Amino acid sequence: MKIGFIGLGIMGTPMAGHLLNAGHELFVFDRAGRPESLSSATLCANSREVTERADVVIIMVPDTPHVRAVLFDENGVFDALKPGQLVIDMSSISPIATKDFAHRVREKGAEYVDGPVSGGEVGAKQASLSIMAGGSESAFERARPLFELMGKNITHVGEAGDGQTAKIANQIIVALNIEAVAEALVFASKAGADPAKVRNALMGGFASSRVLEVHGDRMVKRTFDPGFRIELHQKDLNNALESARALKIGLPATAMCQQLFSTCAANGGSAWDHSALIRAIELLSAHEIG
Amino acid sequence: MKIGFIGLGIMGTPMAGHLLNAGHELFVFDRAGRPESLSSATLCANSREVTERADVVIIMVPDTPHVRAVLFDENGVFDALKPGQLVIDMSSISPIATKDFAHRVREKGAEYVDGPVSGGEVGAKQASLSIMAGGSESAFERARPLFELMGKNITHVGEAGDGQTAKIANQIIVALNIEAVAEALVFASKAGADPAKVRNALMGGFASSRVLEVHGDRMVKRTFDPGFRIELHQKDLNNALESARALKIGLPATAMCQQLFSTCAANGGSAWDHSALIRAIELLSAHEIG
Repeated sequence: MKIGFIGLGIMGTPMAGHLLNAGHELFVFDRAGRPESLSSATLCANSREVTERADVVIIMVPDTPHVRAVLFDENGVFDALKPGQLVIDMSSISPIATKDFAHRVREKGAEYVDGPVSGGEVGAKQASLSIMAGGSESAFERARPLFELMGKNITHVGEAGDGQTAKIANQIIVALNIEAVAEALVFASKAGADPAKVRNALMGGFASSRVLEVHGDRMVKRTFDPGFRIELHQKDLNNALESARALKIGLPATAMCQQLFSTCAANGGSAWDHSALIRAIELLSAHEIG
Repeated sequence: MKIGFIGLGIMGTPMAGHLLNAGHELFVFDRAGRPESLSSATLCANSREVTERADVVIIMVPDTPHVRAVLFDENGVFDALKPGQLVIDMSSISPIATKDFAHRVREKGAEYVDGPVSGGEVGAKQASLSIMAGGSESAFERARPLFELMGKNITHVGEAGDGQTAKIANQIIVALNIEAVAEALVFASKAGADPAKVRNALMGGFASSRVLEVHGDRMVKRTFDPGFRIELHQKDLNNALESARALKIGLPATAMCQQLFSTCAANGGSAWDHSALIRAIELLSAHEIG
């Protein structure tokens, strides 16, 4: 199949590579050019040319304004979009903006699927990403074989935008679960217990979670190399809180977590792993658990 | 062995029953008398008589003031405590008070183990409680065979008080994980997605937890019968926040969760299951997910 791929960053490059390895013909664009590993893909001049030459266009860029620009700026996807084409946005962006983008794409007779991922750079390289998809049944079924080349746990959540909504729900839970483990371990340590032993005692019970397992271990071992950078989680919580404001939803703990991530950023931690949120709680108590 | 058991409530009665069934001689006391199921245990007049007649004294009462009264009031444990005796407090109370109680008990030449439990009434009946224990190695080894008659997942966390510290850490994490799932599902629902599908999409990924599995399901199905009552979780968070104040620890999300539980209580929800914390988030957004 002729596939367009726009956005060749840390995530996009290995994801596009899997499509290429599966025998698809790739037409790619990124402002920074084409990485060496994708030398057998055709480099296009802009997103419009990608859309002119491919049947399906996949987008993997950082945030809502970047997707908007790829779609609607001069020489963007929209200029060349034809009826029957399929646009798949795998970026993690606003679900509200996504519903608008999908509406405009469908007005041209094309289809739109949002398929944000979780699993990070490792998941992108190993083709083991979790993909949360939104769109019509027919559009999702067209996208599914491509998703299966890039990920493993693929869920059709609902209509266009619902994939982005699920991704935000995921990021809210992960952030607040990190906060939960951070407050618990700071409490345990300052009360005189060994935080590693407390963590062990809690695994397997009602407090158990992937975050207690993975991020709790990082907190105890003080290994805050990403992983997933705080500045990226801040971007996701910003989409959560902006959407919440537009939708009239009160999310008090999510808002607080965002402020604690900002506290980390204020201390030079934008690129720390998000488990380093515990450092903000440690600052509040003038106490380090490690 | 001659075992004393003080506190024959919903938890204490089945726990004492397991000791009786294992062939131990039981000396019991509770202000409300002796339940029918423990008719072969010897009912004592007060905690002092229990301590006079038993080698090991187990306490299972609601909160810190009750343990203090059992130990130190007139006709309490302390009046009769002899060198070599073992006091095991399985109530969920303050770790700071516990360290003081243990100190005073050891000054009399006796030993002290704190062994708060998680697993609730079902765990107590099935002898499948998780037990987080604090105390010296020798005291813990004396208590272990009795713990094994009442629970399954038994961890020696550290010194006296550390069992209570681990229990509080557990309750902090469970409360904040409930908050996490509540904010995520209210967001998902109000953004137009199906919260049941979003929950399914997130299971197995980094957002996965026992709370997403068990309490998330209750939120989606609107089944808020306890389970674990909000007023009990409030008691545990009160111990967390009082201890945190004494220890000079800032726990912002734990404090917020306590306020949201109070919001549920204000709406008649003291006896709702703690997963009904989502109702406070729903109130904030004037939106019900079910």
